[in-house]
Amino acid sequence: MKLVSDLVTFGETMLRLSPAGNERIETAGEFEVRAAGAESNVAIAAERLGTPSTWLSKLPDNPLGRRVAGELERYGIDADPVWTEEGRQGTYYLEQAGKPRGTNVVYDRANAAVTTAEADEFDLEALRDAEVFFTSGITPALSATLAETTATLLKTASRAGTTTAFDLNYRNKLWSPSEAKETLTALFDSIDVLVVAARDARQVLDLEGDAETLAETLGTDHGFETVVITRGSAGALAWHDGEYHEHDAYETETVDPIGTGDAFTGAFLARRIDGDGVSSALEYAAATAALKRTIPGDIAVVTPAEVESVIGEQTSDISR
Amino acid sequence: MKLVSDLVTFGETMLRLSPAGNERIETAGEFEVRAAGAESNVAIAAERLGTPSTWLSKLPDNPLGRRVAGELERYGIDADPVWTEEGRQGTYYLEQAGKPRGTNVVYDRANAAVTTAEADEFDLEALRDAEVFFTSGITPALSATLAETTATLLKTASRAGTTTAFDLNYRNKLWSPSEAKETLTALFDSIDVLVVAARDARQVLDLEGDAETLAETLGTDHGFETVVITRGSAGALAWHDGEYHEHDAYETETVDPIGTGDAFTGAFLARRIDGDGVSSALEYAAATAALKRTIPGDIAVVTPAEVESVIGEQTSDISR
Amino acid sequence: MKLVSDLVTFGETMLRLSPAGNERIETAGEFEVRAAGAESNVAIAAERLGTPSTWLSKLPDNPLGRRVAGELERYGIDADPVWTEEGRQGTYYLEQAGKPRGTNVVYDRANAAVTTAEADEFDLEALRDAEVFFTSGITPALSATLAETTATLLKTASRAGTTTAFDLNYRNKLWSPSEAKETLTALFDSIDVLVVAARDARQVLDLEGDAETLAETLGTDHGFETVVITRGSAGALAWHDGEYHEHDAYETETVDPIGTGDAFTGAFLARRIDGDGVSSALEYAAATAALKRTIPGDIAVVTPAEVESVIGEQTSDISR
Amino acid sequence: MKLVSDLVTFGETMLRLSPAGNERIETAGEFEVRAAGAESNVAIAAERLGTPSTWLSKLPDNPLGRRVAGELERYGIDADPVWTEEGRQGTYYLEQAGKPRGTNVVYDRANAAVTTAEADEFDLEALRDAEVFFTSGITPALSATLAETTATLLKTASRAGTTTAFDLNYRNKLWSPSEAKETLTALFDSIDVLVVAARDARQVLDLEGDAETLAETLGTDHGFETVVITRGSAGALAWHDGEYHEHDAYETETVDPIGTGDAFTGAFLARRIDGDGVSSALEYAAATAALKRTIPGDIAVVTPAEVESVIGEQTSDISR
Amino acid sequence: MKLVSDLVTFGETMLRLSPAGNERIETAGEFEVRAAGAESNVAIAAERLGTPSTWLSKLPDNPLGRRVAGELERYGIDADPVWTEEGRQGTYYLEQAGKPRGTNVVYDRANAAVTTAEADEFDLEALRDAEVFFTSGITPALSATLAETTATLLKTASRAGTTTAFDLNYRNKLWSPSEAKETLTALFDSIDVLVVAARDARQVLDLEGDAETLAETLGTDHGFETVVITRGSAGALAWHDGEYHEHDAYETETVDPIGTGDAFTGAFLARRIDGDGVSSALEYAAATAALKRTIPGDIAVVTPAEVESVIGEQTSDISR
Amino acid sequence: MKLVSDLVTFGETMLRLSPAGNERIETAGEFEVRAAGAESNVAIAAERLGTPSTWLSKLPDNPLGRRVAGELERYGIDADPVWTEEGRQGTYYLEQAGKPRGTNVVYDRANAAVTTAEADEFDLEALRDAEVFFTSGITPALSATLAETTATLLKTASRAGTTTAFDLNYRNKLWSPSEAKETLTALFDSIDVLVVAARDARQVLDLEGDAETLAETLGTDHGFETVVITRGSAGALAWHDGEYHEHDAYETETVDPIGTGDAFTGAFLARRIDGDGVSSALEYAAATAALKRTIPGDIAVVTPAEVESVIGEQTSDISR
Repeated sequence: MKLVSDLVTFGETMLRLSPAGNERIETAGEFEVRAAGAESNVAIAAERLGTPSTWLSKLPDNPLGRRVAGELERYGIDADPVWTEEGRQGTYYLEQAGKPRGTNVVYDRANAAVTTAEADEFDLEALRDAEVFFTSGITPALSATLAETTATLLKTASRAGTTTAFDLNYRNKLWSPSEAKETLTALFDSIDVLVVAARDARQVLDLEGDAETLAETLGTDHGFETVVITRGSAGALAWHDGEYHEHDAYETETVDPIGTGDAFTGAFLARRIDGDGVSSALEYAAATAALKRTIPGDIAVVTPAEVESVIGEQTSDISR
Repeated sequence: MKLVSDLVTFGETMLRLSPAGNERIETAGEFEVRAAGAESNVAIAAERLGTPSTWLSKLPDNPLGRRVAGELERYGIDADPVWTEEGRQGTYYLEQAGKPRGTNVVYDRANAAVTTAEADEFDLEALRDAEVFFTSGITPALSATLAETTATLLKTASRAGTTTAFDLNYRNKLWSPSEAKETLTALFDSIDVLVVAARDARQVLDLEGDAETLAETLGTDHGFETVVITRGSAGALAWHDGEYHEHDAYETETVDPIGTGDAFTGAFLARRIDGDGVSSALEYAAATAALKRTIPGDIAVVTPAEVESVIGEQTSDISR
Repeated sequence: MKLVSDLVTFGETMLRLSPAGNERIETAGEFEVRAAGAESNVAIAAERLGTPSTWLSKLPDNPLGRRVAGELERYGIDADPVWTEEGRQGTYYLEQAGKPRGTNVVYDRANAAVTTAEADEFDLEALRDAEVFFTSGITPALSATLAETTATLLKTASRAGTTTAFDLNYRNKLWSPSEAKETLTALFDSIDVLVVAARDARQVLDLEGDAETLAETLGTDHGFETVVITRGSAGALAWHDGEYHEHDAYETETVDPIGTGDAFTGAFLARRIDGDGVSSALEYAAATAALKRTIPGDIAVVTPAEVESVIGEQTSDISR
Repeated sequence: MKLVSDLVTFGETMLRLSPAGNERIETAGEFEVRAAGAESNVAIAAERLGTPSTWLSKLPDNPLGRRVAGELERYGIDADPVWTEEGRQGTYYLEQAGKPRGTNVVYDRANAAVTTAEADEFDLEALRDAEVFFTSGITPALSATLAETTATLLKTASRAGTTTAFDLNYRNKLWSPSEAKETLTALFDSIDVLVVAARDARQVLDLEGDAETLAETLGTDHGFETVVITRGSAGALAWHDGEYHEHDAYETETVDPIGTGDAFTGAFLARRIDGDGVSSALEYAAATAALKRTIPGDIAVVTPAEVESVIGEQTSDISR
Repeated sequence: MKLVSDLVTFGETMLRLSPAGNERIETAGEFEVRAAGAESNVAIAAERLGTPSTWLSKLPDNPLGRRVAGELERYGIDADPVWTEEGRQGTYYLEQAGKPRGTNVVYDRANAAVTTAEADEFDLEALRDAEVFFTSGITPALSATLAETTATLLKTASRAGTTTAFDLNYRNKLWSPSEAKETLTALFDSIDVLVVAARDARQVLDLEGDAETLAETLGTDHGFETVVITRGSAGALAWHDGEYHEHDAYETETVDPIGTGDAFTGAFLARRIDGDGVSSALEYAAATAALKRTIPGDIAVVTPAEVESVIGEQTSDISR
Repeated sequence: MKLVSDLVTFGETMLRLSPAGNERIETAGEFEVRAAGAESNVAIAAERLGTPSTWLSKLPDNPLGRRVAGELERYGIDADPVWTEEGRQGTYYLEQAGKPRGTNVVYDRANAAVTTAEADEFDLEALRDAEVFFTSGITPALSATLAETTATLLKTASRAGTTTAFDLNYRNKLWSPSEAKETLTALFDSIDVLVVAARDARQVLDLEGDAETLAETLGTDHGFETVVITRGSAGALAWHDGEYHEHDAYETETVDPIGTGDAFTGAFLARRIDGDGVSSALEYAAATAALKRTIPGDIAVVTPAEVESVIGEQTSDISR
């Protein structure tokens, strides 16, 4: 029974099944198993940087669901799912490779237990007491019920004065840009902090222009308090209180790119909750994202000291 | 492009995901991946013993579906699935352990592609040209469509003079005994050879008595040509043309019990197709089943020489 | 930040490094890594059976210490260690084998961070608010400081009305029987529930007689509320309020014997906290211990349903 | 029993034994095991791109030979070896590493069963009915018998109007350039399509000049219908009907370079059989070769969609 | 450069390639790799028990040969092979399973480098200076050259006053009983200590009777100093100076039976060299053999303390 | 019992425990286990290049100590440690990653058995008879006893006319630069050949200037016969007899950077012992170091042919 988390997130966490190394799903004899979900990734990144965090969701009451919850708790967050006898554990199969094969995902997440989650199944006090409530554009894409639940939770948090943060996170294997646009823009009124990839802003929201233009247009049109535009290896830009803040991506050797954006967002929110300005938060976010890419799995298993070391460029080749 | 298989089977093959050794699903870092399904198991056991065999099914046209088909072809059968963009690849999670933990299965097979398979999607000539057509009581349990397809395929084969064989294979995680009874007994008219565990005969078909009574009752009531009653480590009994044939189970050190019954049935059918009498076929079936239990995975990766060696009790401790 | 745990335990948790299968430490190319400690094992067994539990300890603030805490939290308990820059992470190397090789342990736990843990480093309110405080005879064997801390924590809990439970847990690689006897009997005044192996009662406490005699002698001489005598595969006997309760060990196929006693004790305490009588608690304890032996690692990764299934003898060979 | 394959290949397939990662043969505790042979690689690449293919060879009738045949069938081809009690299963030990260590091969293929294969052991109708018959310069290097068999099979196919294709594939661990030249040029009369690395054309065939000169010289001197000159990362050039066709190599991150040329040739032949012009076939070949380099093992486990995606440059970093 | 070894052995050591667990050679994705040979096994068992030992052989000068020599030196013996550019590294494929599958070996040892080893390639002073020279009946079975070399080495040692020991070690995959009898009995004049399985004494040497009869007959007929008859789990019997010595086999849980006899013989010789009587040496031999069966691989990775613990029955379940 | 080694080294060898791939210590389920120590690394590199080498140290008489000695002997050196019941086996945990995470080491080497090693525990004749005695700046950092022992051994060797070589090897997790300077410079009088990283020369010895200046300053100030300044990827420079010799680093794909300097030094000493001039020795050293970086583990498992191939730039992509 936890008291209060500063950050509460809501969303689906899947089992990620992936062949080791560069093996193919079609022929591998074993799959590595890891818990993976945008919103739990964000919660863990924040928790690892010192922000007590809770992840809300709905899981099947079987070994697979318990596996997800247990693995997430390993990283220190409070995993507080609703347990159910109905619905399945969502999974995805991941195959990673260099060019020209690239990384490929086979989703097997239809009818996951979480798709039936309704707002009144959760402890809404946790949302109201939190500093920040976070979810992403994946959640409302998963079912009509979840679209409604997402809207309700955002409104509930917003009305209670909890800052609401949202990563647009467009997934083209889940819905079309126009479906996404319709559902997501309807949520914008309840959102304070929007994180969006420049590519998604253009493809889904039909916006044009450079990152500054995208940020300002979004900020002005929808009244966001903060808009963060991410541009992969080109760094990130934030618009806040009419001012721009920008930070380059740190150089990194990519071992696993999945979860980079979530690490970025989790770190950004953690530093903001901790009182940092937007520029400083962007710097932590960029450093955490760079570290994430060196770590297998979706999750940013980092420490504050490591993040600060990246920022301070204090890494040598070998520390011994 | 295959010419003709002597044995044609139809059913679902899943991906089986299981922790190595005695690890738990809840905590294992890797899952072993194998193709697993009663009807493909039967086809492979028969093929390994020299009977050309084909497995019919429906698979998703993605790396998971291709994995299943490819793995099955490795064992020499003709895997000839309908490929579809709809439906998912069924999976099951398997955890094996000794007493008192036992072996546990978590099915995740709802909405598998195969559940939409209709009879006219298949090359019915293959059924008509085969010596034996086989499916099991799992198949009609998976969807209403499959229940109908199973009935149609059995009738089609039966009318063409192909011997029809059926393993009752009751699965209590799929349906209740009474549901199973209603659906399965309706198929009995089209079935020539019935294989059924004594336990299922009692629990599902509401029969009583010892194996001989069960066999004769079934044979007489439903006009089966052959009834095989399996009793696990207590061996098997067949009723055929009013006569009884019986064979003990061979002693075996169990590494993986899954697929034992399928190995038994595949070997029985292979020997019958090859012209053996029921007693001889039972002997091969028992030996193949005993070997299967020493092999990880669902599949009886055996050779005729090994089976004959078990029958001849020619195994020494080390052959070198 | 947890509110209140019903069970609080205190002790060292090590990294357990062990070759896979039956390989030898001397030649293995990899070691499996797991968190392992009597008191965290007890806390997890209790938590898995529904009793909110906290584990207190002291860990080095490095990746090894974080690994221990993280792995323990995976199983749901509140791992609340003091973090320190001094002292190392204790480890032990474990080699498991059948007869006549047996299981062998190489301890490398000297100068572990926990050996410097003093009572005032901990949140003593947690002890005072708990239903039960548990530690074992390993803890005071690790350092003079820990012997004192153990005494203080037991007294603190006892004075606050928290039930104190203690497993004698004699380890002959840590101290001699006479050293153990002197230190441990001095703690008995503060202990309500004593768990002790019959062998240890004889070897360390110089007692004689059968389990009943050992239990009653200990209970009468030291005023314990409950004395549980464990006898391995011969089952366990409890003396409580002048009455005897006894339960056989369940038949089990041993994969990993380490942690069996801890699983027993954790389950016993969980059921007692939940209000069960001593007989019922013994039954749960025996079933949990039997399940533990089928699970690799020190930890009883079980569910209440599994424990109840063992008690109800409802396990079949395969559940599917 | 297959009807007709469009492509029939003939040659040795070995067991490839290799340490994982960058480990050394001298110290590794495990070897990965895979089937590997130029001609089966070509057949599989073609089959994966839609061309029914058969591989002819001779294998020992033991678990090693069955392993080779089974693994090849997994990829959909018809593996139709002659089974024999004589001769062994050829193997090679492979150690992969970056510069300056490089990739090293230890052949252990002497006295392989295939070295005794004679033409009349095979179903020559399959060759006559095929669109293309393929073998490589490795095959006649393996034994005098195989040199004769290779000549006979090429002549048989050629006389039946089957297009004959040949990859020169010089291996300096098998024979000297002058030995190779003498044996291979004697086969040229029966060959329609020659694939040869520019390096081999110079080292073995004593030719000079750039790729165009090499191709035209070979084409003119020996009357080949098509000559394909491969130049590794510098791309490939084909001479056909007096015209040149050229295609760059696609950028690729190399995980395993073995089999790249075979993937190229298999794809080239598949597209030619399917009716593509030489330029289009070169494009598919280059894309298939690039994909192969990202895949562990000798075999191009690709799909037509993946190859087309490389051609269309439609790969993004992550597809989800 | 070693000074003098008390025990010198001569024979082939192979690479042993085996699937993990109970997997099949036909389908396993990895093989475990270990050095394995009767005479190096004997040398290592003796070395581990304190007798400086040297193994003579001939190995290919490539990574495989270096692997064998390096792995053997790991266990402390002096591996002193002749290195050659000719001949290959012998291998064997091993599949272990319980009944009724049993353990199966596929030899691939023809044309191994060692088959060309001639006596004058070795440092014969080492043989003359040793206390005991050992080889087994496998060595002369491998080639005519080796048969001659074996005879020469035995004579050389014998003439120099070095005790010669010989394990008959019949392998029916190498030669027939009558071939073995002819070759081996011709060596008997040069042999002081004969170890032979009762089964081999009967099958190969055409003897009859119980172990005592076999031993005395052999001893009397051929003038052996010592004859040891091994009977697997029925223990061993030695005839020495006209007296019988007998020892039961110790109870053991078999993980890997290969090498049991070699462990027995190595320990027997080590204790005899150390001055023990025959009875005491048999006791050590039986205990070492029992320990070997708990250890994966051919090699008895034991310590004197462990062997003495088996003899003293001091093993408990867990030592901690 | 070895006669004479040309190179004798002295120092600690640890167990190196590291997650596979890029996994984190905090979450990995297995650690790879390898023996690792600067002075044994140097001995092995020299032995592999043909110089008989002995490593002196002190190890705990338990499976961990035996593991270290056994693994080192696998590479051909004479591992001749003092065995003790006191002190533990030193370990270190290693996590390797690309930028910006970098490679991180957690030492757990306090109170290792070697820290109590005194000079009179060793066979000093071996030092006196050797061509070269080598140790490094890590050894005296480990304990006051070892600092004294290091001084004594260097003096003993020096007085006997054995060339003494020393790698400064500063480790900032063991001591401060000023502590190191004080202890190490006091040893300089007994040292003939100094190897030092330019970075360490500046940080620890407070020197300034380029490599030439550093080398000459050290040579002149302390009377070294040879000074080798290493500069990582910038190559190495040696000052000897007033002359400069320089060699670039070879291009290499780094798989494991640990042990690169030891490979360099071992090869340099081996070639000098073999009579090479300084320039030639530097060339071998650079090539050996480049090869080492492609090999997992601390140890340079190389052959003379491989080193010469790097020097001759004869490596192609694939050798087959």
